Amino acid sequence: MEKTVDTVSSVSISRRGREMQSSPIRKLAAIAEARKKKGIRIYHLNIGQPDLPSPSPVLEAVHSFSKKTIEYAPSNGLPEPLSAWKKYFAHFGIQFDESELIVTTGGSEAITLALCAVCDAGDEVLVFEPSYANYFGFAGIANVKPKAIPTTIENGFHLPSEDVIESYINEKTKAILYCSPSNPSGTIYSRDEIQRLVNVAMKHGLFILSDEAYREFAYESNALSIADFPEVRDRAIVLDSCSKKFNVCGVRIGVLASHNKDVVSTILKFCQARLSVATVEQLAMVPLLEDPDKYSNPIVEEFRKRRDLVCSELKEIPGVVSYKPEGAFYIVVGLPVKDTEHFARWLVEEFEYEKETIFMAPAQGFYVTPGKGTNEVRLAFMLKIEDLKRSMIILREALKAYNTASR
Amino acid sequence: MEKTVDTVSSVSISRRGREMQSSPIRKLAAIAEARKKKGIRIYHLNIGQPDLPSPSPVLEAVHSFSKKTIEYAPSNGLPEPLSAWKKYFAHFGIQFDESELIVTTGGSEAITLALCAVCDAGDEVLVFEPSYANYFGFAGIANVKPKAIPTTIENGFHLPSEDVIESYINEKTKAILYCSPSNPSGTIYSRDEIQRLVNVAMKHGLFILSDEAYREFAYESNALSIADFPEVRDRAIVLDSCSKKFNVCGVRIGVLASHNKDVVSTILKFCQARLSVATVEQLAMVPLLEDPDKYSNPIVEEFRKRRDLVCSELKEIPGVVSYKPEGAFYIVVGLPVKDTEHFARWLVEEFEYEKETIFMAPAQGFYVTPGKGTNEVRLAFMLKIEDLKRSMIILREALKAYNTASR
Repeated sequence: MEKTVDTVSSVSISRRGREMQSSPIRKLAAIAEARKKKGIRIYHLNIGQPDLPSPSPVLEAVHSFSKKTIEYAPSNGLPEPLSAWKKYFAHFGIQFDESELIVTTGGSEAITLALCAVCDAGDEVLVFEPSYANYFGFAGIANVKPKAIPTTIENGFHLPSEDVIESYINEKTKAILYCSPSNPSGTIYSRDEIQRLVNVAMKHGLFILSDEAYREFAYESNALSIADFPEVRDRAIVLDSCSKKFNVCGVRIGVLASHNKDVVSTILKFCQARLSVATVEQLAMVPLLEDPDKYSNPIVEEFRKRRDLVCSELKEIPGVVSYKPEGAFYIVVGLPVKDTEHFARWLVEEFEYEKETIFMAPAQGFYVTPGKGTNEVRLAFMLKIEDLKRSMIILREALKAYNTASR
Repeated sequence: MEKTVDTVSSVSISRRGREMQSSPIRKLAAIAEARKKKGIRIYHLNIGQPDLPSPSPVLEAVHSFSKKTIEYAPSNGLPEPLSAWKKYFAHFGIQFDESELIVTTGGSEAITLALCAVCDAGDEVLVFEPSYANYFGFAGIANVKPKAIPTTIENGFHLPSEDVIESYINEKTKAILYCSPSNPSGTIYSRDEIQRLVNVAMKHGLFILSDEAYREFAYESNALSIADFPEVRDRAIVLDSCSKKFNVCGVRIGVLASHNKDVVSTILKFCQARLSVATVEQLAMVPLLEDPDKYSNPIVEEFRKRRDLVCSELKEIPGVVSYKPEGAFYIVVGLPVKDTEHFARWLVEEFEYEKETIFMAPAQGFYVTPGKGTNEVRLAFMLKIEDLKRSMIILREALKAYNTASR
């Protein structure tokens, strides 16, 4: 009965899979692990994983999980976390009803599903480069093209004029995706800057996807939410995450919020397919979301000190171009080297200063446009003050050694 | 400085968003809740949420989570869960190295990412209808077209011949996606049937995506894994989930396994964008995965009893077409009514038998082809034996009343 197979055809990976960039940091990470085994201490300035402990109520909530069956949560989220997110937003003067919120598996899922809800395959979404590198990944999964509008270190990566932004729009453009306070630059957009995005979105029929995961990390004045602009009530999507503000990256709890009922109902349909978000960790976030300042303030204050230190130290290193990031816990820094990928690798693989070196993220990964960011790195402030101080000394010595060697 | 907005353009949802089906069960669920408030007891035969308690080691693992910071896990999974999944598979004679495994947010994420890795927008994937309805959702998100090959209740939804399967293939076809033991039909494909899929995949250069979430629910003989077919080592992707076998639907822990290094590295790139899977719940699954029989056997034995009861009761109801599902905990049943969507709604909204009624899932949602499954429902065995018995009595009475009323 069985047929013999007379020909064998090979299989091949999808184009979106082949075109997806693998994280350049991952390659360096393996080298770094090998180097540590040789007795070299490496200061990690490359990662966004907070080093501070998670607030105790989240751990207590995990330890006291009281259900006998770990059941599916409703696809939009359990009632308690939905109500806690509503309170969280209200605390910042942002009014969302529970029916306008969807709990997601991290901010990552919120962004991916928002892209799928507003874009079809081949559509474009405006981003500002340098940009959170994973936006390119989410866009790749969703078959959407990120169209990059350049910003420059000279003005602290602030936004260009409306005219410049408009010049990147074509008939495929469906949305603007931005992050303020920004990963990777720490930039916070002013009211005037966000108003430009609002005007462009109104004029050209674009959705605005606003990634507000770093809301609390605002050192000069509050960061505005896109929800503060009532004109775009019908086209704004707020994306948020517990990860950074509460030092709980591993819980993977985010949220998506919109006053546009079609957006919410569409994303709910996507969410019904994936069933639900982890029950234990949804519930564990409730105490933090209900009293956000109490738990995020100490975290933010620590990062403010770190930012201040790094900025003042960077200013003293010859040839380094920097600025004062208004928020988040990153800075993109210009270095007096031609190729920061080579420099970052050399640091991890070869350099040492008193048995120590540093690991930085080359900035090319945050740019869509090839050849951009080649003399920039992103630093994350995930080390104690004294370790950051030490890292800046090592950076200064490394630049001296590298530039002497290459001359 | 600010420009005035002279025109306002409206925004619109993506086509993939508009075309996504919303779950038909959700509409009925709201009606059911209202009916319960009127004092009518409703037996839920519609849902796949296990009613049994979760095994105690998973709850103990949650309660004793010992880290101080809930950190990001590695994108492919934490070492302990990866090693536990390896052991889990080895227990069934399936050999995967940790490097061939990726821990996912439920089976849902595993399936979605597998589709993205092997298909581009507009590509097609073969499914057998009736099919797990969420496959259509994952395909929608991934911009992939599910091409449905019919199977029929008359032969218990077993597979057609190779020739028939081949007739659905065109130049867009990239993969076969199947589930055995099957949701929604409970069918387990024999070695000969899976061999047909293997032959077709070899001949036409297709990947095989095998959803093995119900592996343990095999009542007549063991369910085969696609990993038992060495010919397709380069093109088989095993998709699995803890949800059903361990009664832990809410943990959202699944896995993807493949010997094809390009598949694994591509999916890892997607996973790096979404960062990681919930840390607490990854770790909580380890004790169950390391000793699977101990925790799944009691669950499977309970469902065997329920299946046996439902099958013998269904045979006694006039006009009902059924079969004996070899696995899972569902059955698709043919009813002597024209439109099960109307019948199911009538049951929930109007009918009562001694103040009780039943909630069943109309089967149309499990078919891609319009007009198919209109006289079928899916029943899930999520109730205690006595409640299932009672449900079958209500079904018999309901059919009598419905068919009398419509005459």
